[in-house]
Amino acid sequence: MNETLVTVVGNVATEPETVVIATGAAVTRFRLATTTRRWDPERGEWVDGSTSFYSVSAWRTLGSNVKESVGLGEPLVVQGKLRIRQDEKDGRRYLVAELEAVAIGHDLARGRSTFRRNGASSA
Amino acid sequence: MNETLVTVVGNVATEPETVVIATGAAVTRFRLATTTRRWDPERGEWVDGSTSFYSVSAWRTLGSNVKESVGLGEPLVVQGKLRIRQDEKDGRRYLVAELEAVAIGHDLARGRSTFRRNGASSA
Amino acid sequence: MNETLVTVVGNVATEPETVVIATGAAVTRFRLATTTRRWDPERGEWVDGSTSFYSVSAWRTLGSNVKESVGLGEPLVVQGKLRIRQDEKDGRRYLVAELEAVAIGHDLARGRSTFRRNGASSA
Amino acid sequence: MNETLVTVVGNVATEPETVVIATGAAVTRFRLATTTRRWDPERGEWVDGSTSFYSVSAWRTLGSNVKESVGLGEPLVVQGKLRIRQDEKDGRRYLVAELEAVAIGHDLARGRSTFRRNGASSA
Repeated sequence: MNETLVTVVGNVATEPETVVIATGAAVTRFRLATTTRRWDPERGEWVDGSTSFYSVSAWRTLGSNVKESVGLGEPLVVQGKLRIRQDEKDGRRYLVAELEAVAIGHDLARGRSTFRRNGASSA
Repeated sequence: MNETLVTVVGNVATEPETVVIATGAAVTRFRLATTTRRWDPERGEWVDGSTSFYSVSAWRTLGSNVKESVGLGEPLVVQGKLRIRQDEKDGRRYLVAELEAVAIGHDLARGRSTFRRNGASSA
Repeated sequence: MNETLVTVVGNVATEPETVVIATGAAVTRFRLATTTRRWDPERGEWVDGSTSFYSVSAWRTLGSNVKESVGLGEPLVVQGKLRIRQDEKDGRRYLVAELEAVAIGHDLARGRSTFRRNGASSA
Repeated sequence: MNETLVTVVGNVATEPETVVIATGAAVTRFRLATTTRRWDPERGEWVDGSTSFYSVSAWRTLGSNVKESVGLGEPLVVQGKLRIRQDEKDGRRYLVAELEAVAIGHDLARGRSTFRRNGASSA
């Protein structure tokens, strides 16, 4: 209830890392950067606007597939549940934009991909 | 391009304020809080999860209508362009989740509203 | 799982009607129309593009509040679960775009509203 | 303005086909099917709910990459602009749910993919 579902199209900003948490579950995490483009009337061209960063987490099968498939700098489309969480480190509070992924794919607007379904035989 | 459009359902956490910026344009700003609900298996009931805060800005007609219509604590549905922006204040950097509103309405899941279209005669 | 959540900004195209279904539950239904705008380079102005229609259903409290608050032609922002359903009538099959509403509000980009929370005293 | 942006997670229901339209532009089209899952209390398990079909169109680079990368039955995440369009064929009117794609990716919740960015050397 009251989940905020969002789709972000951007680039992988940190190498995906998989860690096992206290409960024994594995989660793959990485940072995703998305940069808006805006029209600059003085220069007469599109220029980069602001960049937003998201901390993406992917659980279970999605997490292990991301770990095997996704590298630094690759373009992704990520759908997930958004939370703006307040954290504290070294006595300083800060905000993190967390995206718990529901679906992740390489963005075919930027390149091509070869897909193999989990459980499919490789023979 | 690459705009991240999101819809947040939540409550108004600060009184909406309208300010005129350097260009002469008016903008109405307020904070929006949304709290997830999660099932607590030990207590056998739904409990509040984490709360996310967004800094909403509404321009032009939308801004002036929000200023006239919306009060502290009221439930809203807000669709807008999301940006996670890094800011600095007193030498400390922090993140802000900004939502530039496209559409805003009182959430009818929580109460009733009477609407009058802009430009409609009141006679 | 696999729910398609969407937010539609448009106008009420049919008077909201509340019916009681076989299970005894009440549902309020209406049609919502949304029209895109596109730039016409020959005329040098924005013109209406295509219009999409959605069959919106609102259950429980949301439904009764919509019935009391929303009239024909009013501008709304509607968040809901989308289904493209095939129906048959008089031997002809056709598609319906159904939107089971999660949140509905009068669009403050188009006018002003006065809100009263359910359960609030009117005294 | 008033574009309805939506993200659909589903499976490719028809082989993607590329056609050149009158203006000389190429577009790749396919059908996307998404099936909800619902809890059946009598059977005590999750069962398939209704299936929604979308007619997806992908233009330019996105279209040619989809043509080269995507096959029948593969799981995708598709973000696009939604239109519910009325069409007529053999004297019968019917509705089509059209999704003009902005981003498309193979869903890594269902398998693994290898990505190569456009313009990258293959040597």
